[in-house]
This record gives sequence, C-alpha cells and structure tokens, in this order.
Amino acid sequence: VHLYEHTGAAAEKGPFKHFMLKEIYEQPQVMRQVLEGRVYKDHLLEQAFGVAAAEVFDQVKSVQLLACGTSYHAGMVARYWIEELAGIPCHVEVASEFRYRSVVIPQDTLLICLSQSGETADTLAALREVKGRVLSSLAICNVPGSSLVRETDLSLMTNAGPEIGVASTKAFTSQLVALMLTTLALARRHGLSSEQEAEIVQNLLALPEQMQDLLKLDSQIEEMSQAFAEKHHTLFLGRGSLYPVAMEGALKLKEISYIHAEAYPAGELKHGPLALVDKEMPVVAVAPKNSMLDKLKANLQEVRARGGELFVFSGDRQSIQQEEGISVISLPPVSRLMEPILYTLPLQLLSYHVAVIKGTDVDQPRNLAKSVTVE
Amino acid sequence: VHLYEHTGAAAEKGPFKHFMLKEIYEQPQVMRQVLEGRVYKDHLLEQAFGVAAAEVFDQVKSVQLLACGTSYHAGMVARYWIEELAGIPCHVEVASEFRYRSVVIPQDTLLICLSQSGETADTLAALREVKGRVLSSLAICNVPGSSLVRETDLSLMTNAGPEIGVASTKAFTSQLVALMLTTLALARRHGLSSEQEAEIVQNLLALPEQMQDLLKLDSQIEEMSQAFAEKHHTLFLGRGSLYPVAMEGALKLKEISYIHAEAYPAGELKHGPLALVDKEMPVVAVAPKNSMLDKLKANLQEVRARGGELFVFSGDRQSIQQEEGISVISLPPVSRLMEPILYTLPLQLLSYHVAVIKGTDVDQPRNLAKSVTVE
Repeated sequence: VHLYEHTGAAAEKGPFKHFMLKEIYEQPQVMRQVLEGRVYKDHLLEQAFGVAAAEVFDQVKSVQLLACGTSYHAGMVARYWIEELAGIPCHVEVASEFRYRSVVIPQDTLLICLSQSGETADTLAALREVKGRVLSSLAICNVPGSSLVRETDLSLMTNAGPEIGVASTKAFTSQLVALMLTTLALARRHGLSSEQEAEIVQNLLALPEQMQDLLKLDSQIEEMSQAFAEKHHTLFLGRGSLYPVAMEGALKLKEISYIHAEAYPAGELKHGPLALVDKEMPVVAVAPKNSMLDKLKANLQEVRARGGELFVFSGDRQSIQQEEGISVISLPPVSRLMEPILYTLPLQLLSYHVAVIKGTDVDQPRNLAKSVTVE
Repeated sequence: VHLYEHTGAAAEKGPFKHFMLKEIYEQPQVMRQVLEGRVYKDHLLEQAFGVAAAEVFDQVKSVQLLACGTSYHAGMVARYWIEELAGIPCHVEVASEFRYRSVVIPQDTLLICLSQSGETADTLAALREVKGRVLSSLAICNVPGSSLVRETDLSLMTNAGPEIGVASTKAFTSQLVALMLTTLALARRHGLSSEQEAEIVQNLLALPEQMQDLLKLDSQIEEMSQAFAEKHHTLFLGRGSLYPVAMEGALKLKEISYIHAEAYPAGELKHGPLALVDKEMPVVAVAPKNSMLDKLKANLQEVRARGGELFVFSGDRQSIQQEEGISVISLPPVSRLMEPILYTLPLQLLSYHVAVIKGTDVDQPRNLAKSVTVE
C-alpha cells in the first residue's frame, strides 16, 4: 500500500481553515495539471495514456467503468459522455457489487477503474476478477505507483496532488477531466470530427478560468448554507449528467455535515420521494440552462406546491427567479459538456459551509477513512 | 388512459384495515395467479408470452429493462438473474433518464418495459423512442389493454388484480415472478439445463406456501416497527440481488411513513454513508443465508461499532443473534434465487406498521398518485 507523504507545501493549509477548503480552491490549478501534456492546441495527445494506448483504443467496442463512492459518481457522468460522443455502450457499476455477481462482459470491452488512491480494495479485487476477460484495462488514479496503476494495462494520472480532506473534491473534478480525455480518445475513432474535438479541448482549457469565476460565489453560498444547519435531511435533484453531480453533492453533505442528503433523478420524484417533501426538507437542484431545464422546472414546481423549500444553482437568470421559498444562486454560462464538472464546485462549497456551521470535523469526518483499503 | 374500475370484491377491504395490508396478504394467491398457465409441472410454458415469442427469444442477445419507481427495483433484481442464468448482458435504467440521453442499444436487444398500470408516461415515451431500434419489446404489466401492452410486441400480464394502495406491494412481487419466467425463457436457450429449470419452477410453485409462512411473522414485525415511529431517517442495506430489495423497502417506508429511508449496497457504506450512522439512525438489513452473508455481517459490525441500531431480517439463526442494539427477525430457509421475492414481504409489513403507528394515510400517502401518467 502506497501512502501519501504529508510533507512540503501540499500538506500545509496556508490561509485556509481546512484542507477541504484549500482543495476546493486548488481546483483551477488542478485542471491545468490534469490537462498538461494531455492536450496540445486543439487536440488530445493520446500517447499520454501510454505507448500501447492507440492500438487498444482502436479495438474498443464497449466500456465498463468500476468504482466506489465519489469515483462511482465520476463514472456515472462519463457514461453520458461516452454513449453520446463515442456512441459505444458504456456501463458503470459499484465495484463491491460487480465483483460478487455473475457479470456478463463483452470481450472487446475497455475496463476503466477509477480510484483516487489506487488502493480501493473492492475496485482492485474487481479488476483482478475480470481483467483476463476484457480487451484491456485503464486506471484513472491520483497516486502514481499505486496497486491499481501497477495492475492495469494503461493508466492516466489525475495529477491533482495529495488530497488530505477525507471528503474528495479536487480528485473528483480531475477524474472527470481524465474521463473526458478518455471519451475523446474513443470518440475520435467513432465519428467525432476534429472540429468537435477542438471545441471540447477549448472547453477543457477554459475550465480554470470558469472555476475561478464560480469560486467568487463562495460568500453567497456561505449565506445560503445557514438554511441547512438545523435540518435533518435534504433531497438533491438533477437530470441527465447532472444527476450524478446531485449524487456527489448529496454524498459530500452526508460525509461532512452528517445531514441525511439523498439524490434523485428529478423525473423519479413522483414515483415516491415526493411523499417526503414538506417545509422541513430543503431541496437542492442543479439547473443549468440546457434542454432539460423545462422538465426540471416542472419537477421543482411540484416540490414547491408541496411546501418544499428550494435551493437552486441555476444557469438561467430569466427562467428561475428568487422568490418566497426559492433561493437561487445564478451561475455564469458554461458549455453543455462541462456542466457536470463546473456545477460540482458550488455543491462542494455548500456542504463545506454547512459543516463549518455545524462544527463537525470537516477534514476527518466521523467513521470515515480517506482510502478504503479493506473490504 | 385505462382506469381501474373499483367495483366488486377486489375493491373491498374485507377484514383488513387498509388496502395495502389486504394486498400484502393477497400475495400467496397472486403468486398462483401469475404462475397459472405459465408453468406446467417442471417447465415454463413460453407460449404464455404470445405466439411470436419463441422466435424472438431465439434471437435475443441482450436485454434492456426500463421502468420507474418500484418497477425499476424489480428490473434491478432481474438483472442479477438474467446475467447469471442466461449469461447475456442485461441493463436497467430509469425511464425518465433513458429517454432523454443519447443511449447506445444493440440491435439484438429485447426491450422489457415494466409498469403496474401500463400507463407510466416516461416508460411509454422511452418505449416509443427506441422500439424501432431493438429486436423486440415486451411489456410486463398488470393492466390488460393498457397503452404499454398495446404498443409492445410481446406482453406478460402479472395478473395481480387491482392494486388500490398507492404504495405498490403485490404488483412488485408479481413482476418479479414474471421476470423470472422471462429469465427462464432466455436462459433455456443459453445453457440452462432442464434440471435447473425444473428446480426453479419448483421454487416458484413453492412461493405461495413460503409467503404464508412469512406472513406469520406479522406480529413480530409489528412489534419491531415501534422502534421506527419516532425516527427521522433510516438506512436499508443489502448486497447482490437483495440490494434492490433494500431499495424497495426504503421506498415503501418513504412513501407511506414519510421517514427518510435510503438504501445502499452494503459494500458502499464505508465510502460515505457510515458518517451518518449514530444511535438516532436505525439500520435495516436483509441478510439471507447465502454466500454474501459473511461480507454483510462485517458491514453490520461497522454500523454497530458506530452506535447504529440494527434491525436484521436474517436467514441464519446461528450467525446473527439478537443482542443489545441488534433486533433480529429470523426467516425460514428459502432457495437462493427466490430470496428477493420472499424477503420483500417483511419489509412491506414493516413500513405498513410504521405508517399505522404514525397515523398517516396509508393507502393514499400525501403528494403521490397511484399511476404517474404525466411526466
């Protein structure tokens, strides 16, 4: 097991009260690090995946992602990207379930294992279980030389630097970028034009600046967080690739504030969870300005009609407005494919500030360890 | 839209205080109804799926299940069965997500749509979206002549009779049986021996009697339910095909008692939700005596070590014992493949009794409709 060495600048909190906050604020720089040497001008440099990568990518006809916890949410986002841009089947499963069932996995599958530490026990065991039955395996990981990196055929480091806070932040967003790079490698073999690739690369390169803009919302989010401190539970809603972002937002709040937060794809609300909604249950929604916004708004109206208090991170100043029972934080415009990466930041800040108000141990929440290296 | 006609015996509660309780108790009889004419002695009668079915089943190389709410949980169970017994890839997705993303679906896919009413708007819309791109479509449905049945190539009725309680019970277990019948139709073409088929058919035919035995636990479960009435939230844990059963158990509790219940595959506990656990958060576990029991027990010990109070539905009297902080209800032995069907019943009874103690409107919980016929 490879452990972090907590030395040097990376292990200092500097002006930040907690490592988690420092790591949230490091994300613009982390975006540069994960893109460095992986894109050049307007295209992906796929040799970053290793010398054998191009030949593997040529043969991939389906993708299976395996992960636990936060990394699983990153995998869920990637599924939306890969099926849309590469047009090949992509499936995602929690490693602790995958490894113990009779799974069927096509031979021409690229197995992608996601783990910040590269030592997550269930993910490693799942890899060992199926790697003989797939085309190739790729680790997306933050720790060079970790078991996962040693045992997979290909690897792409997320280069996020040591993450000290138990609740993962920069590791998640850097995994998302690594997954978008992987999506590009696959998609350029399945009809993605060089113009489309160039546009996505430009969007990726714009992330640091866009993240800086989002971090300026911090004090607004801090103010919003006061509404959560006395609550026992909340719902997080999203649709499409923002559903996993809602899941990740809910997990953060669980992990560090001990508030029972649960995420739902907003379309499922009427199939049960709406029964929970009353004025004691705040509902958080991630609502970028995209083709799903009208659907999501209809879901939010149902919540409001049942007395639920809404907290909306909105990409459309016109269509969702602050009023009695609806608190809105407006985000600057972002390109559609980058929404899951960027909308993650305000949710990280929200859970951070709620935890600080509640006085929990933000960097070392009760009952949890940074890396789950045992089953 | 086809609506139930609430006339005749089916719409009477008889000696039961609520329709939901009546419908829970009807399940042994419903098992007979869903099997009637579908199995004969030791084998499946696959003409029950329609005259065109055999030719379709011959060509199926993968399965895509679509559903919402409770039906989605039935689909999740079927995935474990189909990949294990038929050895072909099977995927399950919430219809409201599936219909709005760029999905990749192989041409030789059997699309299975699950809906009690056959009128669920998102499931119908998803069917219309992709039915031209798949081999064939099958509706598993409780209402003959419903839109779903009319618009799919094949159909299998669950024959559960009208379900009046908004929280689905008998519709769910009858869907599971219908899905096991579908699994047999596929698996006999992919190496399932006639001996294995005969054994599963015998297991299905034993369900009514086994359900009768489980219903005898009612007063024990009623007693256990008192511990939940004052709680704000709970976790439900399961592994493998019992994870969707835990999800369904959590959804029932949400729907009718308004307690925030969330299910996790037990292996994910350490990746976040364990932070929530303290003595205010009861944890329910479904723990049949199978190959996952030792793993699940280790997960439960973690909960106990953090002060969480456990409520275990156990299939192994020896290995999980009642003690301080651990309440156990022992279930009679059941065959492995039938576990998800049978372990559902005690969870239905648990949520029912909690709701009765809380005094909610069990059959018409707030904010919910029986069939979600609009988006």
